[in-house]
Amino acid sequence: MASSTHPNAPCAACKFLRRKCIQGCVFSPYFPPEDPTKFANVHKIFGASNVSKLLNEIAPHQREDAVNSLAYEAEARLKDPVYGCVGAISVLQRQVIRLQKELDATNADLIRFSSDQNASMMAQSSGSSLQNPHGLPPNYYGTNYSWNYNP
Amino acid sequence: MASSTHPNAPCAACKFLRRKCIQGCVFSPYFPPEDPTKFANVHKIFGASNVSKLLNEIAPHQREDAVNSLAYEAEARLKDPVYGCVGAISVLQRQVIRLQKELDATNADLIRFSSDQNASMMAQSSGSSLQNPHGLPPNYYGTNYSWNYNP
Repeated sequence: MASSTHPNAPCAACKFLRRKCIQGCVFSPYFPPEDPTKFANVHKIFGASNVSKLLNEIAPHQREDAVNSLAYEAEARLKDPVYGCVGAISVLQRQVIRLQKELDATNADLIRFSSDQNASMMAQSSGSSLQNPHGLPPNYYGTNYSWNYNP
Repeated sequence: MASSTHPNAPCAACKFLRRKCIQGCVFSPYFPPEDPTKFANVHKIFGASNVSKLLNEIAPHQREDAVNSLAYEAEARLKDPVYGCVGAISVLQRQVIRLQKELDATNADLIRFSSDQNASMMAQSSGSSLQNPHGLPPNYYGTNYSWNYNP
């Protein structure tokens, strides 16, 4: 199957493997001749045979996503031969832990701060009703924020 | 090179590939015979030849990390043939964006809330000095929190 942009050219995979690009070539829709690096990377890391097997086990409508994720992994492994894209996972996991801690701390400070402010206001003016005991804006009683606060 | 736990057994890679496990086998230190699945997964996704090439291009002290990251990627690809571990990257990226937005919103609400509280206190008791104009706890003036606040 020839690429739509280069109707007479073999796909990047068949060109790389020096073979005829036949009708129904499993690589052709995902490895256009104008992007030879994409196939070269995937072939270097996974091997053409493994990629072909994988594509044949996947439903056609999911093959493009599969090829793109393989290309992403291959590029990451070429850039970082030791960790590949697992390095990105580690960085993101640490970032999630840091942000969650920062959010928990901010929420805890907000609770403390509002309690202090409230106590100070109550000392200054007695007799006010206690409808909003923490003096928080209404949205802080919603479910959007996950803090560990048990009055 | 035989594994330390099974001194006479070939490594999992050589056993899988039905070949003699010779002294200096590049796979042996990282694919012990008691964990045959680790090599089977890595071989299925990357191919023994590609893994061998990759290990020979990496410094010996980094090879264990490289094998473990390959094993992680291979397992992820077998569980999710379409996205592999790139799926985990997408999930984590979305989580980071959500947490950052939540943190920004919490910090913005904290500023708004403290300004409101301050205005209310100043209306109640005039003559107080304005040393802490937002009434925030001292740590909110540090650099740990990234908010967009320009008084």
